[in-house]
Amino acid sequence: MLRLTRHALAEFGLRPIRPREDVGRLVAALHAETRCDSVCVLNVSVLEAQYRLWESCLPGVRPFYAIKCNPHPVILRALHLLGAGFDCASPAELRAALAAGCSPSDIIYANPQKTASSIRAAHALNCDLFTFDSEHELCTMLKNAPADRPGRYVLRLLPPDESASICKFGIKFGANPQEASRLLRLCRKLGANLVGLSFHVGSGCGSVDAFRLAVQYMGTVARQASELGFSLTLIDLGGGYMSRGSTKHYEVPNARAGITPPSFEEISSALLEELAKIRPHFAPDVRVIAEPGRFFSGDSMTLGVRVFGRRIVFSKEESEYAGETEEELLRAGAQVSEVKYYVGDGLYGSFNAIFFDHVVPHLTYVHGDGTPYETPYGPTYQSHIFGPTCDSLDCILADRPVPLLEVGDWVVIPAFGAYTLAAASEFNGIPRPTVVACLEE
Amino acid sequence: MLRLTRHALAEFGLRPIRPREDVGRLVAALHAETRCDSVCVLNVSVLEAQYRLWESCLPGVRPFYAIKCNPHPVILRALHLLGAGFDCASPAELRAALAAGCSPSDIIYANPQKTASSIRAAHALNCDLFTFDSEHELCTMLKNAPADRPGRYVLRLLPPDESASICKFGIKFGANPQEASRLLRLCRKLGANLVGLSFHVGSGCGSVDAFRLAVQYMGTVARQASELGFSLTLIDLGGGYMSRGSTKHYEVPNARAGITPPSFEEISSALLEELAKIRPHFAPDVRVIAEPGRFFSGDSMTLGVRVFGRRIVFSKEESEYAGETEEELLRAGAQVSEVKYYVGDGLYGSFNAIFFDHVVPHLTYVHGDGTPYETPYGPTYQSHIFGPTCDSLDCILADRPVPLLEVGDWVVIPAFGAYTLAAASEFNGIPRPTVVACLEE
Repeated sequence: MLRLTRHALAEFGLRPIRPREDVGRLVAALHAETRCDSVCVLNVSVLEAQYRLWESCLPGVRPFYAIKCNPHPVILRALHLLGAGFDCASPAELRAALAAGCSPSDIIYANPQKTASSIRAAHALNCDLFTFDSEHELCTMLKNAPADRPGRYVLRLLPPDESASICKFGIKFGANPQEASRLLRLCRKLGANLVGLSFHVGSGCGSVDAFRLAVQYMGTVARQASELGFSLTLIDLGGGYMSRGSTKHYEVPNARAGITPPSFEEISSALLEELAKIRPHFAPDVRVIAEPGRFFSGDSMTLGVRVFGRRIVFSKEESEYAGETEEELLRAGAQVSEVKYYVGDGLYGSFNAIFFDHVVPHLTYVHGDGTPYETPYGPTYQSHIFGPTCDSLDCILADRPVPLLEVGDWVVIPAFGAYTLAAASEFNGIPRPTVVACLEE
Repeated sequence: MLRLTRHALAEFGLRPIRPREDVGRLVAALHAETRCDSVCVLNVSVLEAQYRLWESCLPGVRPFYAIKCNPHPVILRALHLLGAGFDCASPAELRAALAAGCSPSDIIYANPQKTASSIRAAHALNCDLFTFDSEHELCTMLKNAPADRPGRYVLRLLPPDESASICKFGIKFGANPQEASRLLRLCRKLGANLVGLSFHVGSGCGSVDAFRLAVQYMGTVARQASELGFSLTLIDLGGGYMSRGSTKHYEVPNARAGITPPSFEEISSALLEELAKIRPHFAPDVRVIAEPGRFFSGDSMTLGVRVFGRRIVFSKEESEYAGETEEELLRAGAQVSEVKYYVGDGLYGSFNAIFFDHVVPHLTYVHGDGTPYETPYGPTYQSHIFGPTCDSLDCILADRPVPLLEVGDWVVIPAFGAYTLAAASEFNGIPRPTVVACLEE
């Protein structure tokens, strides 16, 4: 069994760390070296541990990592070495997968809506496994395939029940039963090379039944397909698989929606059970894949953002106290109305996940030397923690009790690798966090 | 008076267009040349017209363009040639301003919260005019100034009334009266070189009185400063100035908030009136500047996004109709439940403004050959218009009536240059729109 080693990932110059190294201390040490005010620690060993977990829970289901979740080249290279294929959504992602060493046959171009030029670009890269969910897309794919080599097409189905998912995709993608029947007949009529079926229950799915129902629906469509003469060779179980750590960022949204998410083990065992039932409708040599993203990259990255500014706002009565500086006023017992902190990354950077991924970041506080703030905290103040841009919307924590942090302290967010860096911009000219890849030795 | 010419902007290879050129046709022509599915037309002549409008309405108030709004190099170069200075928020923006030809003395580093290393970077670039609003920031600036040349500091005040602004900044920035007094005394005590005062009424400000009150408050603080012995030489009227076209994207949020925005002319005349009253509290040679962003870049860019996918969802009864293709079903009179479109840019690209800038994009529809859809539209269908990523949140119009667009048609959004490209990411590997700079000849 392959193990990730510094040798295997030599070109990335991984930093050796101890197993279960304290991330707060690591962040402080990395700041001392780089002077960066936002640092991402990418722990490759976590990817490996997750890969083992996947293999043990879902034997026979090969993960095709969803690059969109976090396209960092170390993640892609490590997952390729471990044996993953890739789920891509654009020619740029196809090129990233190939650059990681992946073979074109280990890629699924799973964006159900592609431009004609993207389809041609994929064929030029020898990638020919495509997802679709509409007549127009099917025709565009047929029209843009090379004459001598037809594409292989996977029909994406609308899961029957998305109600327990935080990010629902059904409004945008997936064929309902009526559409699926029509598309199957169209495939037959147009001679399209339909090879498989897929679904996506949505991110942050809180129900085992949602997975069960989706597989059952897939079975129904596979039977129809087989009645039309198709011998399907691919089952794609989509994405929506949480990692342990990244569920913490969903705790508040889940609680709000009344969702208690099932464990990966519960989901896996339900999937295996349902899969066994639908296999007869597929070809005997059917391959089963899935498209996890968050499951791998979520826990692998920890973000540290440095407190570089602090502003204590006192209550109106401050003038009664002798003193001009914040320190003098604090010492004299002036009442604090609120504290505003300014940190190295924000909503336009990694914390775009607050908007786009519905997360409530799980913040921990670390002293400048790397030691964590003791919990339960002593006295706290109502505080805002703002990102570094000029926009007031750029706020990662609004009006919550926080211990009095010092400039130079760190806000550390564990398991913050999914849908964070992937959609970060450099608004206001603020650089994205520096990523330091590490390996436990 | 300088006029922008192709000669002056030769290094950017501007495309000559006719005055009031039809943008729909231009977008179609640019697609024929570039094959890009999202095209930004940057009309430099609009920048010039806005500059003349600014000069005529606010004589004696020099604009320092807020780079964050749209840092495209053609915009920076054109505004520099017209005579603008620049408002920067990071060392990267300082470097962009200098690259446009700007002198360090024509730059204000107006982010009130900066890291120590950013302050040192600014001094290394000979930029020494800084905004602040807190004790910590003041001390950091003093500590990081070169020994032989003190920085010049501008205190940012909290406007008394932000209630009529769409984007309020007061929660994050700006000293209230009590803080301002304390900071003035601190400046005195620490020997800080306080040179001026600033405020920002917030973006999309719907009230002339908000501007009046802010200037009046500035007068109060200037009097206090002069009593402490400061002779202030800079008045900074901040940003929040709308352009004519970009107000359209605010119509829905404004209506929701019950705001009827005043015209630029009304705001200008109120500002000039109030300025005259407060000048006595400043040095005789006081300079007046402002930090407009949207006012210039908002109207200068038009975005065209191509419809590359379409999916017609029929009502449940479709099976009663003979036909398999969408065309056959439409012809047979099957009832359309909704239409889903997929276009070349979305929420992770230019349309991030839907989230971050609170806009409701004002969409127009253009045939593939560049001719606009006639209004009022004939029959319409409930439609979603989605961006190109795999995320269902990536939707630029949700469940609204739209005429039946064809694949190859365009959705064109005029006046869409403010806070759009500036914070666009390349999530999913989808490229940002191609920008084509044009000049009316």
